[in-house]
Amino acid sequence: MKLTTTRLTHLHQLPTGVRELLSRNIPRAACARLLPLTSRRQFADVTQQRRNLTTQQLDSGRDERERVVILGSGWAGYTIARELDPKKYQAVVVSPRSYFAFTPLLASTSVGTLEFRTALEPIRTRRSDISFFQGWADSVDFKNGKIAVEEAVADPSSSRALTQDRHAGQTKEERKEEKRVEAKKGKLFDLTYDKLVVTVGCYSQTFGTPGVKEHAYFLKDVGDARRIRSRLLACFEAAALPTTTDDMRRHLLNFAVVGGGPTGIEFSAELHDIIREDLARIYPELVPFSKITVYDVATKVLPMFDEKLGKYAMEIFKREGIDIKTSHHVEGLWPGAPGESPGDHSAFTLKVKEEGELGVGMVVWSTGLMSNPFVANALDEVRELPHTFERLAAAPEDSQTSNPQQWRVKKDAKSSSILTDPQLRMKLVGDGKNKPEGILNDVYAIGDCAILEGSSYPATAQVASQKASWLAKRLNKGDLDRAAGFTFKNIGVMAYIGNWNALFQGGEGGNISGRLAWVIWRGAYLTKSVSWRNKILIPIYWMINWIFGRDISRF
Amino acid sequence: MKLTTTRLTHLHQLPTGVRELLSRNIPRAACARLLPLTSRRQFADVTQQRRNLTTQQLDSGRDERERVVILGSGWAGYTIARELDPKKYQAVVVSPRSYFAFTPLLASTSVGTLEFRTALEPIRTRRSDISFFQGWADSVDFKNGKIAVEEAVADPSSSRALTQDRHAGQTKEERKEEKRVEAKKGKLFDLTYDKLVVTVGCYSQTFGTPGVKEHAYFLKDVGDARRIRSRLLACFEAAALPTTTDDMRRHLLNFAVVGGGPTGIEFSAELHDIIREDLARIYPELVPFSKITVYDVATKVLPMFDEKLGKYAMEIFKREGIDIKTSHHVEGLWPGAPGESPGDHSAFTLKVKEEGELGVGMVVWSTGLMSNPFVANALDEVRELPHTFERLAAAPEDSQTSNPQQWRVKKDAKSSSILTDPQLRMKLVGDGKNKPEGILNDVYAIGDCAILEGSSYPATAQVASQKASWLAKRLNKGDLDRAAGFTFKNIGVMAYIGNWNALFQGGEGGNISGRLAWVIWRGAYLTKSVSWRNKILIPIYWMINWIFGRDISRF
Repeated sequence: MKLTTTRLTHLHQLPTGVRELLSRNIPRAACARLLPLTSRRQFADVTQQRRNLTTQQLDSGRDERERVVILGSGWAGYTIARELDPKKYQAVVVSPRSYFAFTPLLASTSVGTLEFRTALEPIRTRRSDISFFQGWADSVDFKNGKIAVEEAVADPSSSRALTQDRHAGQTKEERKEEKRVEAKKGKLFDLTYDKLVVTVGCYSQTFGTPGVKEHAYFLKDVGDARRIRSRLLACFEAAALPTTTDDMRRHLLNFAVVGGGPTGIEFSAELHDIIREDLARIYPELVPFSKITVYDVATKVLPMFDEKLGKYAMEIFKREGIDIKTSHHVEGLWPGAPGESPGDHSAFTLKVKEEGELGVGMVVWSTGLMSNPFVANALDEVRELPHTFERLAAAPEDSQTSNPQQWRVKKDAKSSSILTDPQLRMKLVGDGKNKPEGILNDVYAIGDCAILEGSSYPATAQVASQKASWLAKRLNKGDLDRAAGFTFKNIGVMAYIGNWNALFQGGEGGNISGRLAWVIWRGAYLTKSVSWRNKILIPIYWMINWIFGRDISRF
Repeated sequence: MKLTTTRLTHLHQLPTGVRELLSRNIPRAACARLLPLTSRRQFADVTQQRRNLTTQQLDSGRDERERVVILGSGWAGYTIARELDPKKYQAVVVSPRSYFAFTPLLASTSVGTLEFRTALEPIRTRRSDISFFQGWADSVDFKNGKIAVEEAVADPSSSRALTQDRHAGQTKEERKEEKRVEAKKGKLFDLTYDKLVVTVGCYSQTFGTPGVKEHAYFLKDVGDARRIRSRLLACFEAAALPTTTDDMRRHLLNFAVVGGGPTGIEFSAELHDIIREDLARIYPELVPFSKITVYDVATKVLPMFDEKLGKYAMEIFKREGIDIKTSHHVEGLWPGAPGESPGDHSAFTLKVKEEGELGVGMVVWSTGLMSNPFVANALDEVRELPHTFERLAAAPEDSQTSNPQQWRVKKDAKSSSILTDPQLRMKLVGDGKNKPEGILNDVYAIGDCAILEGSSYPATAQVASQKASWLAKRLNKGDLDRAAGFTFKNIGVMAYIGNWNALFQGGEGGNISGRLAWVIWRGAYLTKSVSWRNKILIPIYWMINWIFGRDISRF
């Protein structure tokens, strides 16, 4: 059996017949003969169809190929999984999500400008060679090239923004005991790799603001977008009840966005669009109660755009009535309108340092990244070095100590992100007084969880996918060692600012704003969207929703 | 104020300013002047746009029109709401669901052949004149033409099949006390009507089979379809884990459908299609473990079709490997595979009288209707007769008793459905020894909750929408009293049986089966789907999914 899936469990718990079945490369015709008659008849035509793509087949078909295990299915992970040459590498994605989310379109899906699935690409498809296990990477054994995976098939958190460690509050011993139980149940299993690509991304940072984790709406994943869409429409429906007071209407229809980055700004713009274009016609008497405010602690929003574009955006927002409140500090969030006990679908209270307690219908939190607990915990101490470890020449051996050198994954002091060399290989640092350094030649880290040491590339989809493409190309060519390191080519930043206006700031300095930038914005995302399915569906939804309005059914 | 929304509460609890604001017909320009500056700027263009459609405007614009309150938004309720002449009637829909579900397409959405929203039409739209409150009808005061509504904006059960009374287990006194609290909170309010149309439908009947309510998957509403889609794909993903045993694979991928009516049969066909066309390519090694079985207590399935078509369907199913087990009795369902304790996403155990305990991944329950608790409870005793009551001549007054005559809503002995006269008006029956009868001239009952007394029309969408259209036409013309009663015109029955085959049995006796019937099936549902939006999206999804396969992302 080539996919070594060692179960961390006792022998009597081993899956009956799985290894036997997997290890033999039984001809398909013979296989069919072993099956019950019904199943055979039912799918006889199919098992002979097309190439077969999943674990069992990949295992026997692995041949000379190296297995590249990719942790995560975001911009970095999904890009490299697709771009690795399947003739040379067996790509195995391990992710709690069964899909890749095209994040720039999430804000559109959160108000129904696009349908949710147009922003998703399933990892498994009829046409791809990518193998997939739905699970969380739990720990890494660098020495033996092996990761432990905690399965996540039914994990309800897997389509939502993550704000804290799943195992937070557990002591190391408790977690160890839990892992024993999980292994016994088949919830935890080992997976070997030849190369490991860490693209686990970041969690959402709430800066310890009380109530935000529990009551704010995030916008990092499609489950978040679905919650926002449902809540937004429920706020209007609740405000339309004859028993709702005007005060409560004002609370329910007061929408606060915390964070003035592209996500927060684009969401505000989309929210303004659905209110102006659809809800104003469906609930005309409620629209005067509605309000959108963007809060940011910084002195300006959209810091990545130059002054002229920023000013243009502010003017558009002012004209549209969206309030931008910079240098404002959110201090807390709790259910129930100000001074009231929480009701069934009542408003929330948002406490802002500069404004006091405000009644709000929904707070969308779109600021802050937090180090992934996997990076913090699993990627820390390296107990035994693998043979792929390469010590960098810089520092001499600590000869005065008798203890063997202890190595840790080198991390950025501020963000705790993994540091890599220009070849995107994970760096290690020793605990000797000379702080010796080394790299793992078979472990790479890209995406929001990693920083190329010495660079100042932003944590964006563009950087993540460029790194992933670069690494895939190098691995496909086999010239990583000889290649010059990765460099980022800024192809520009864009933001939708509502009412068919956008900002575009080219990498080379060209600035465009307004309707033309909007056309570029739509064109770019349409071109970049991955599958033909979505390239067709996205413009159809743009048109259908422009003609008929967005759907407001809630379920 | 014309929309009388009496709150069942103390005066100090009254919504501040709501009545005042609603009661005045303030010119829009003046209204804008009263608003804060931001809101005014934000939506200035919109409030001047188009006609305004919701409560406040409808109230002041009610004029000479009669208010028709429609309880329910299914086939009967949605049809009549759309077809009433808005010049003559103010249609107000009260329903726990914010949309109408086009039920014949739910089976397609449950496997992703169509996207969920293509089977939905929101009650509120930019173009309709229908007013809407999201709530449950709670009780009726026939004498004063008033219903009490329990709001349901955030009710999570409202997009799912209902299997029991929301207030089950409460005594009359407990419910009375709860209503007092709800009224205080604004969760309960009164709504007056001139005419009342009861179209509340039925609940799902589980015949007291242990565990079915809790663990079976139903297919009556779009929330059910979403649960099925998610569970089906999770079963395959769980079966693909390397730690899953072959036995567990067989359990997880064993799908049982209980009920051999059109819903159960069409779901089995769609399930077979997604497995054969998509999952067999994505998880080829798992398909041999999968199995579909339809159970029915009757001796045959699809009883509404004649023998030849039924036989044809059985042959197709046999060829496709779907097992049809008639005269089988389901006795229980519980989580955990046979003999095992329930795990995280483990299988269920289905107990069948004729087969014993079976491991299953999902049981789809598509049999049985139960009387709606609103019909059972609220529509029982009529304490005081309204002036619209009309005593039928049949029986003489009970002169010998001094008690005033007590009247009840007349119901069918077997199904407990409301009985109506041929004009679809609700019948009452007195408790005197002569069983005197009467009708309420302003209360109508149509759809699955009602039976035209003496008829044997089936509880189908076709009967419900024909009754609704007939009633709307009569009310629009104002000739209900003079009109001949409603008669049902059977325009045929259809069922999809998988692999591009269908059955069609015309009302006049013409039978078609196979590919041609499938074309008719698709054509009919496309023609009957309500909005242009869906008429466009449905064929697009048929085509996209035929070319690229169904989407298997789960979120």
